[in-house]
Amino acid sequence: MGYNAAPLERLIEQFAKLPGIGRKGATRLAYQVLSMDREEAMEFAHAIEDAHTKIHRCKVCQNFTEQEICPICSSASRDHSVICVVENPRDVTAFERTREFRGVYHVLHGLISPMDGIGAEQLCIKELLLRIRNGGVNEIIMATNPTVEGEATAMYIAKLVKPLGVKATRLAYGLPVGSNLEYADEVTLGRSLANRGEL
Amino acid sequence: MGYNAAPLERLIEQFAKLPGIGRKGATRLAYQVLSMDREEAMEFAHAIEDAHTKIHRCKVCQNFTEQEICPICSSASRDHSVICVVENPRDVTAFERTREFRGVYHVLHGLISPMDGIGAEQLCIKELLLRIRNGGVNEIIMATNPTVEGEATAMYIAKLVKPLGVKATRLAYGLPVGSNLEYADEVTLGRSLANRGEL
Repeated sequence: MGYNAAPLERLIEQFAKLPGIGRKGATRLAYQVLSMDREEAMEFAHAIEDAHTKIHRCKVCQNFTEQEICPICSSASRDHSVICVVENPRDVTAFERTREFRGVYHVLHGLISPMDGIGAEQLCIKELLLRIRNGGVNEIIMATNPTVEGEATAMYIAKLVKPLGVKATRLAYGLPVGSNLEYADEVTLGRSLANRGEL
Repeated sequence: MGYNAAPLERLIEQFAKLPGIGRKGATRLAYQVLSMDREEAMEFAHAIEDAHTKIHRCKVCQNFTEQEICPICSSASRDHSVICVVENPRDVTAFERTREFRGVYHVLHGLISPMDGIGAEQLCIKELLLRIRNGGVNEIIMATNPTVEGEATAMYIAKLVKPLGVKATRLAYGLPVGSNLEYADEVTLGRSLANRGEL
């Protein structure tokens, strides 16, 4: 500190707040912004404002959208009886890229994590239960990450939805396609053995 | 593409323009901005605008500053007869951190690089020559990076300033302090041998 002008220092701090960007990286980025044309920099600033102004959560699935109800939730060609429950909007994009899933989504916006002080009430679970109570849902696919927090959240939600007469399923564990057996960790290998399928 | 709302897509593109940030990283950052409070996001946008509005190049050394003439150039306690010539403002910060240099700086804002179509006329070399012609300068320390472009730029400027009766020097090459001989590349090791000093 002390070597940089105050507005530059403030910009560095803003970049440093983002995940995976440290003080050094933030400094690089801030200097990069300064060496842009004025027009380019204004475009950047407006893109941030714009995204925040125009994008909000879908009333149904809680994914980010420009509309009141997102294109997936309002699509007649999707199967609204199967809901894939994910941690965050990036996971929706990941599933859409597979082009394998024709159901709809529900974004929790987080996972239960007592270590970080995040409880079930901070996630969008009540919105999910409301959707189920409104009827027409047959299956909930718990598609949270295969981590301690992801597992705990999946278990918690499965317990809540089962009494409502809805099937709760979990993504399969196993070897990543194209990976090498030799380098697989023992837990993954053990799971892939236990869940082996018939050829 | 296609899965994200348009304002989000525009924000991702803005982040992806920054150096060292790919499409995936940009997506992460854009989602992070979306999950900030509205206030936080506006602060970020304003920091960009603000930095661009308030910060410009120092009339003397071309470093970024809020004032017309930067604190270093306007300081009476600095030695204005020694100018350390660097590629970019980050290098000034690096030298200031050493607390070893009491002279002043000159920022070129780039290096001569025919591969990238950057010629000498695009750098702030004429501003440097003007400073020298105004008198009072004894030494120019060429502190560009020890790369092909850095070397070429140092040579080019040294050739221009020598006829003006000014000494041109270059940063020393050698082993980085705290490094391991075993892992030093042969060029560095060769230079550090050739430039060995008496104990």
